[in-house]
Amino acid sequence: MPALSKNERRNIDEYISGYIDGEGCFSVSFSKCNRLVVGWETKPSFSVSQNEDRAEVLYLLQKKFNGGFIRRDYSDKTLKYEIRSLPILTNSVIPHFKKFPLLSSKHQDYLLFEKICKLMAKGIHTSKGGFRKILPLAFMMNPSGKRKYTSKEILSSLR
Amino acid sequence: MPALSKNERRNIDEYISGYIDGEGCFSVSFSKCNRLVVGWETKPSFSVSQNEDRAEVLYLLQKKFNGGFIRRDYSDKTLKYEIRSLPILTNSVIPHFKKFPLLSSKHQDYLLFEKICKLMAKGIHTSKGGFRKILPLAFMMNPSGKRKYTSKEILSSLR
Repeated sequence: MPALSKNERRNIDEYISGYIDGEGCFSVSFSKCNRLVVGWETKPSFSVSQNEDRAEVLYLLQKKFNGGFIRRDYSDKTLKYEIRSLPILTNSVIPHFKKFPLLSSKHQDYLLFEKICKLMAKGIHTSKGGFRKILPLAFMMNPSGKRKYTSKEILSSLR
Repeated sequence: MPALSKNERRNIDEYISGYIDGEGCFSVSFSKCNRLVVGWETKPSFSVSQNEDRAEVLYLLQKKFNGGFIRRDYSDKTLKYEIRSLPILTNSVIPHFKKFPLLSSKHQDYLLFEKICKLMAKGIHTSKGGFRKILPLAFMMNPSGKRKYTSKEILSSLR
């Protein structure tokens, strides 16, 4: 990353927000999980995929947010950087995007993501009533994205 | 773009470089053109594609670089912002990326692009010798991208 060392006065935070506006994804998915009271796990995720041959920015993100994992996606020869940890999302990712908001309509996904993470930090998702509150917020995000279960399927098997 | 008006002190230049590092493309293609002395046209292009539903940043780019066109790509439901004008590339795009360089290895493509645009501004591409100098530089860019003609095909039909 030669340009970085030469440009110590650069505003990397703005750069990161611009990069994420193009390449990043905020999502909340749900998995069946019998050990949980409601029977479903709520899984927030902040992720970015990039071609292997220019993955420098993924390492920059990992350093910036002080967490998350970079893994290889063999299906499409990309690397994926992902944070699933709720403490890192609430203490590191959300403060960044509150200070340097996205400028495209992806900002709307971020706002829903922030709302869900904050509710989860209070443990709201672990009760049936709280889960019912979070579910529709999550389904408002990334409407063109694919989901394993429909909202109806999840609600019908809620314990 | 609500976040923009609320954040007048933001460093939009850095944001743009980050966004372009993820989504942008610098390329130089070649078309057969009988009216030119060498028989081939050298076509530099700076472009960004984005889903229609979050095209806000494309309009921001058009304002920033004071030129370029936004057009619909019906094949994949995206909008594409593109600058092909050499004066806008040399006077607006190149100064931006010299000041706020890309941090990924896409920077290498940019450097070749800058070199070619500067040679073109001197008219180098209009002579056979100059064209032979530009061609290999262009073929070093975006090696995974598709091209209509191979370098060999172009050279063999050079006038």
